[in-house]
Amino acid sequence: MKCLNRFSRVISTLAIALVALAASAQTFAQTDPLPSWNDGAAKQAIIEFVQATTDQSSPKFVPQEARIATFDQDGTLWVEHPMYSQVMYCLERVPAVVRKKPELRNVEPFKTVMSGNLEAMAKLTMRDLFKILAATLTGMSVEEYRTEVKAWLETAKHPRWKRPYTELVYQPMLEVMEYLRANGYKTYIVTGGGQDFVRVYSEQVYGIPPEQVVGTAGGTKFGYDKNGKPFLTKEPKLLINDNNAGKPEGIHLMIGRRPYAAFGNSIGDKQMLEYTRAGDGTRLAMLVMHDDAKREYAYGPAQGLPNTKVGTFTQALYDEAKKQGWIIISMKNDWKHVFPFESP
Amino acid sequence: MKCLNRFSRVISTLAIALVALAASAQTFAQTDPLPSWNDGAAKQAIIEFVQATTDQSSPKFVPQEARIATFDQDGTLWVEHPMYSQVMYCLERVPAVVRKKPELRNVEPFKTVMSGNLEAMAKLTMRDLFKILAATLTGMSVEEYRTEVKAWLETAKHPRWKRPYTELVYQPMLEVMEYLRANGYKTYIVTGGGQDFVRVYSEQVYGIPPEQVVGTAGGTKFGYDKNGKPFLTKEPKLLINDNNAGKPEGIHLMIGRRPYAAFGNSIGDKQMLEYTRAGDGTRLAMLVMHDDAKREYAYGPAQGLPNTKVGTFTQALYDEAKKQGWIIISMKNDWKHVFPFESP
Repeated sequence: MKCLNRFSRVISTLAIALVALAASAQTFAQTDPLPSWNDGAAKQAIIEFVQATTDQSSPKFVPQEARIATFDQDGTLWVEHPMYSQVMYCLERVPAVVRKKPELRNVEPFKTVMSGNLEAMAKLTMRDLFKILAATLTGMSVEEYRTEVKAWLETAKHPRWKRPYTELVYQPMLEVMEYLRANGYKTYIVTGGGQDFVRVYSEQVYGIPPEQVVGTAGGTKFGYDKNGKPFLTKEPKLLINDNNAGKPEGIHLMIGRRPYAAFGNSIGDKQMLEYTRAGDGTRLAMLVMHDDAKREYAYGPAQGLPNTKVGTFTQALYDEAKKQGWIIISMKNDWKHVFPFESP
Repeated sequence: MKCLNRFSRVISTLAIALVALAASAQTFAQTDPLPSWNDGAAKQAIIEFVQATTDQSSPKFVPQEARIATFDQDGTLWVEHPMYSQVMYCLERVPAVVRKKPELRNVEPFKTVMSGNLEAMAKLTMRDLFKILAATLTGMSVEEYRTEVKAWLETAKHPRWKRPYTELVYQPMLEVMEYLRANGYKTYIVTGGGQDFVRVYSEQVYGIPPEQVVGTAGGTKFGYDKNGKPFLTKEPKLLINDNNAGKPEGIHLMIGRRPYAAFGNSIGDKQMLEYTRAGDGTRLAMLVMHDDAKREYAYGPAQGLPNTKVGTFTQALYDEAKKQGWIIISMKNDWKHVFPFESP
């Protein structure tokens, strides 16, 4: 009896172990960390990179505290066409600014923006744009700015999809960020866009907290209101121009470590990818190529199309990517779905 | 037999459960998160703050992602007397700089520093000091700088204790940081010292990774070496002066959230504490007071001593702390031990 009892216990223990083993094997086989990606060189490169850098027995192993991955935003994580969302925000804020300062109504470039004449607006110079940015992004407390951006994001819609900009994020890239985080990587946004702008929604949209957003940033000024309560005012003074060489410089300032993986889509990301790859060990550099006019947009060298104002993926960048071994993500071929709302 | 067997299994299972329960109860009772602190208002304030902000049923509950705590470094986390360590570093680097650029040997302020005449060195102006900082902290790659600081830290010793500066950290403050982290807080250093300097040892000494160090920071410049390899050079261009109003400004730039707890020890921390306390809900502001000439140093209003050049804890700061409800940490009365090497 005792023996039988012992035997039955051994059997049931074994059975439990086998069931657990089978279940975990099944989970392993079924769990594709990148379900919106088609099999191909890009998907394979991401998976191989994560496996190699997180496997303690691999010569490419990276200790967890050093696992940093950086992502450009516009054109890499969400749609940048026909215009950066933040520029849309600034243009749409002009009427409110003019209501507060009526003297601007007949002053350029505000007059042109108020006219609503799109053809005239398209001819505005960079200098004009800076005036609009300064008027719409500065001179208020950081809390006021956050409230205004939040309100805008809730109502503004993309002209093509008639959906909020925050829904026009790339599902495959959300999966890459989630996969990296699940493997101990800290994910950062490193954007030419406004740091304070992106911080408003980065946590909700990308799962990236405000302190992991590096972007173009102006100074703030500490002061006190009439009740002696301290607050910070956004100043029209550029501290970080987080584009081109400004990206590795911004990464050093804000993170202080070199990334192991970097993702971009334009010449503004070139130096970030170079800097990333110049580190020791294995480093991943990837570029999203917009070659899918049907599901999103097609621009850049693969299409032989003229470069647009935004997201300039030039022929020179394409050539450097090939030469350096950066991996190009073809939106058309590598992605099963583009947006979360298309996922099955 | 079967029954007895079953009974004995039930008994042993119960026994194991009871032992586990007893052990965990004992652990709970014995674990003081702040063993180097004497019981008193300061210790109590820290524990009450942590309990209230992490208890979901408390009206003071703070969601984990918002739990940010900031710590000044010099005089708050480690010894700042008789001189900031980084200033010591700069002065001690002068001979190496002069070896590389012999033309500086007879140029002030380098001539005075090379003379070794301490009395003459004490008379150097802020302008002189900036020249020394620029010569010793810039004009090299960020990796070269890191290597030099690391080498210096391994050999340099504090004149009083004859120990490396990295051993002269306050054990009670290490415990506060560890306690906060164990309760979901992200701990940051927010220092008037050099961001790149502190980042070299912050992880090893404080358990704070480089990306959680906010400090006075100069710009860097991205470029390529003769082999086309990209690198960043430290530039003599001030980006963040992380003192006084610069502390909340630096916090906004680098973290983008308002802290729930802030710790300082001088007028340079005043605005950080004000900014922290101006947020909603419960916010903790604490000041370390150096009133322990025997175990460390005594300076500031409690001693009626003249303010020193560093860590100016003025009478006005003391009065504001009392008025605002900031909590003063008396090194003499609140701390059982000052340094890790004194702990039992």
